[in-house]
Amino acid sequence: MCSLPVPREPLRRVAVTGGTHGNEMSGVYLARHWLHAPAELQRASFSAVPVLANPAATSSCRRYVDHDLNRTFTSSFLKLTETVKIGVPHSRLHSSRPTPDDPYEVTRARELNQLLGPKASGRAFDFVLDLHNTTANMGTCLIAKSSHEVFAMHLCRHLQLQYPELSCQVFLYQRSGEESYNLDSVAKNGLGLELGPQPQGVLRADIFSRMRTLVATVLDFIELFNQGTAFPAFEMEAYRPVGVVDFPRTEAGNLAGTVHPQLQDRDFQPLQPGAPIFQMFSGEDLLYEGESTVYPVFINEAAYYEKGVAFVQTEKFTFTVPAMPALTPAPSPAS
Amino acid sequence: MCSLPVPREPLRRVAVTGGTHGNEMSGVYLARHWLHAPAELQRASFSAVPVLANPAATSSCRRYVDHDLNRTFTSSFLKLTETVKIGVPHSRLHSSRPTPDDPYEVTRARELNQLLGPKASGRAFDFVLDLHNTTANMGTCLIAKSSHEVFAMHLCRHLQLQYPELSCQVFLYQRSGEESYNLDSVAKNGLGLELGPQPQGVLRADIFSRMRTLVATVLDFIELFNQGTAFPAFEMEAYRPVGVVDFPRTEAGNLAGTVHPQLQDRDFQPLQPGAPIFQMFSGEDLLYEGESTVYPVFINEAAYYEKGVAFVQTEKFTFTVPAMPALTPAPSPAS
Repeated sequence: MCSLPVPREPLRRVAVTGGTHGNEMSGVYLARHWLHAPAELQRASFSAVPVLANPAATSSCRRYVDHDLNRTFTSSFLKLTETVKIGVPHSRLHSSRPTPDDPYEVTRARELNQLLGPKASGRAFDFVLDLHNTTANMGTCLIAKSSHEVFAMHLCRHLQLQYPELSCQVFLYQRSGEESYNLDSVAKNGLGLELGPQPQGVLRADIFSRMRTLVATVLDFIELFNQGTAFPAFEMEAYRPVGVVDFPRTEAGNLAGTVHPQLQDRDFQPLQPGAPIFQMFSGEDLLYEGESTVYPVFINEAAYYEKGVAFVQTEKFTFTVPAMPALTPAPSPAS
Repeated sequence: MCSLPVPREPLRRVAVTGGTHGNEMSGVYLARHWLHAPAELQRASFSAVPVLANPAATSSCRRYVDHDLNRTFTSSFLKLTETVKIGVPHSRLHSSRPTPDDPYEVTRARELNQLLGPKASGRAFDFVLDLHNTTANMGTCLIAKSSHEVFAMHLCRHLQLQYPELSCQVFLYQRSGEESYNLDSVAKNGLGLELGPQPQGVLRADIFSRMRTLVATVLDFIELFNQGTAFPAFEMEAYRPVGVVDFPRTEAGNLAGTVHPQLQDRDFQPLQPGAPIFQMFSGEDLLYEGESTVYPVFINEAAYYEKGVAFVQTEKFTFTVPAMPALTPAPSPAS
C-alpha cells in the first residue's frame, strides 16, 4: 500500500470549518462562536482558524444555495490549470476570474481554495477539520479520503482510544480513480467529523458538546505531534463505499416506499442478503438482493433524497497504518 | 363553557391535507399516494379527498416558499370582507382578485379556501384533517382550535381510546381573542395530526405507518358518527399555550446557547421553576424563572428558530366535553 508521506514539520496552519452545509447546525454554531471567542482553538504551537464555510447557505438555513459546496473542490470547479497535475511550481497556478454567472458555491469554493489551499500545492494549509451533521444514525463518524492518509489515520486512532464510548467509525470516502471533491481536500491533511442523528436546522446540545470535545481533541493531537510525539503502527478497521441504493420510485420520480424499519437507524451494521431494505407504500417489503454482506451508512439522510441515495453501501476492511515517527528537531544553527 | 353546535347531519365533505409544510414528509407522501390510490380514503357514507396543500414548497422540500401557509388562513390574508363577521349571507362573500405580487402561499391559501371553504361559511367542507410532522419529540399530538370544538374533542377521545399505547396528547392552539389561522380552520370541523420526532425532509417508515393508521381511524370515527352512533360526555385533559420562550441570543441575533439536555425531548413533561432550560455556549446554564409549572411543547422545533421560539409553554387543564347525540334520522317524506 502506497502511503502519503507523513508531515515532517509541525502543523502550524490549521483551520476548523463549520457551515459547509448551511443547515448542519453544530458546525454552524461552533464556527460562529469561535469567530468571536477564538482562544478555544489555540494551542502552544499553533492557533486554528475558525471558518464559516458557506455564509449564504447558513443565513438561509439551507444545505447550499446553488450547488453542494462539499462537492465543489475539484479541479474543474476550481478551474485550476493542468499544470497542477504535472508538478509545475504552484506560483504558476491561477484561478479563472470570477464571473457573475458562477454559482455561488463555485465562487465560494475558489475563495476557500485561496484561503486554505491552493489544493495540491505546497502553500496549502497543513490541516483542515470540517464539521458536519447527518440525519442518519451515524453516531460519531470520522471521514477521510483514503487509508493512505497516514496522519489522518493516526488522528482517527487517537480519537477512538480517547473516546471508546463513542465507537468512532472511520469512513474512507474516495472511490478508486475518483478525484477528491470536499472542502478539507484543499489542505495537505484533513478530516471530516460527521455527527448524527440531528435534524437539519436543529442544534442539539448533546451533539454540539460532543463535536466541541472532539474538535478540542483533534487540536490536542496535532499539538502532541508538533511537540515530537511518535505514533506506532497499528491495524485500522474502516468502511469504504461500494455502491449506493436509491429509494424505490414511481415513474414520476416520487418515492414509492421508504427505508424499512428494520434498516432505519442501523448505520454501520451488517446487512445480509434477503433482509428487508424498503417498505413500499403498497404494503410489501423490498429485500436486499446483493450477494454479499454490506454495511449501510447515511441511511435515510435528508440531503441525499435529491441525490438518489437512500443509503450508501460500504464494505468493512482492515489495513495496517505505518508508524508516524516523531518530528526531527530542526537542526540548530550551530550544527 | 360555550360549545359550538355538534353536526346535525352526516359529514360527507371530508378532506385530508398533507404537505401544508413542504418538508414534513409523512403528509407529503401520504397525500401523493392517495392522489393515485384514493380507495383507502373511502368509507360507506363518504369519500375523503386527498389534497397536496403546498405543491411548490413540496417540490423544493421547504416548509414554504414565501410565507408559512399554515398561518395564512385569516380574514386579512384571505381578504374576506368584513361582512363575514357580521353574519351577512355567504353569497355576499368575495375574495379579492389575485395579483402577481401576492406571495405564493397567500394565493394558495385563497385557492384552498375556495376548494375547502369558504371559511366560516355554510358551504365549507364538513371536516379537514391536516397532517404535520415536527422535529420535536411530540409523539402523537392532536391539534384542535379550542375545547369548544365538540366534534373534534370526541374524535380526540376516540383516538386516545383506540391507541392507548400512543399516549395521544391534545393541544388546543387558539389563544383568547386570536383569530384562527391554520388550514383546517377553513372547514366546519378540523383537526391537525402532529407526529414527531422526524427530521425535515426525511420519511421514516414508523411515523408514516402511524400517521396512516391514525388517518384511517379518523375516517372510521366520522363513519361511526354518520351511521348514528351517540357519544357520551367525558372529561378531557388538554394543553393550551400560555407563552413562548426564545433561544438566548447574541446582540446580532445569533444563538448564544441551545435547549438544555435536561429539557430536550421532554415535550409535555412538567417544567418546574428553577430547572435548566438552556445551555449557553459559554458553558453556563439558564434556568426557568417562571413562577409556576408549565408543560413545554415544540421543544427545539427546527421551523421555529426563525419565529423566535425555542419552545411553547403550555398549561394543562381539564374540561367537560358534552355528549354528542346520535344524528336524528332524516324525516321520511310521509311524516
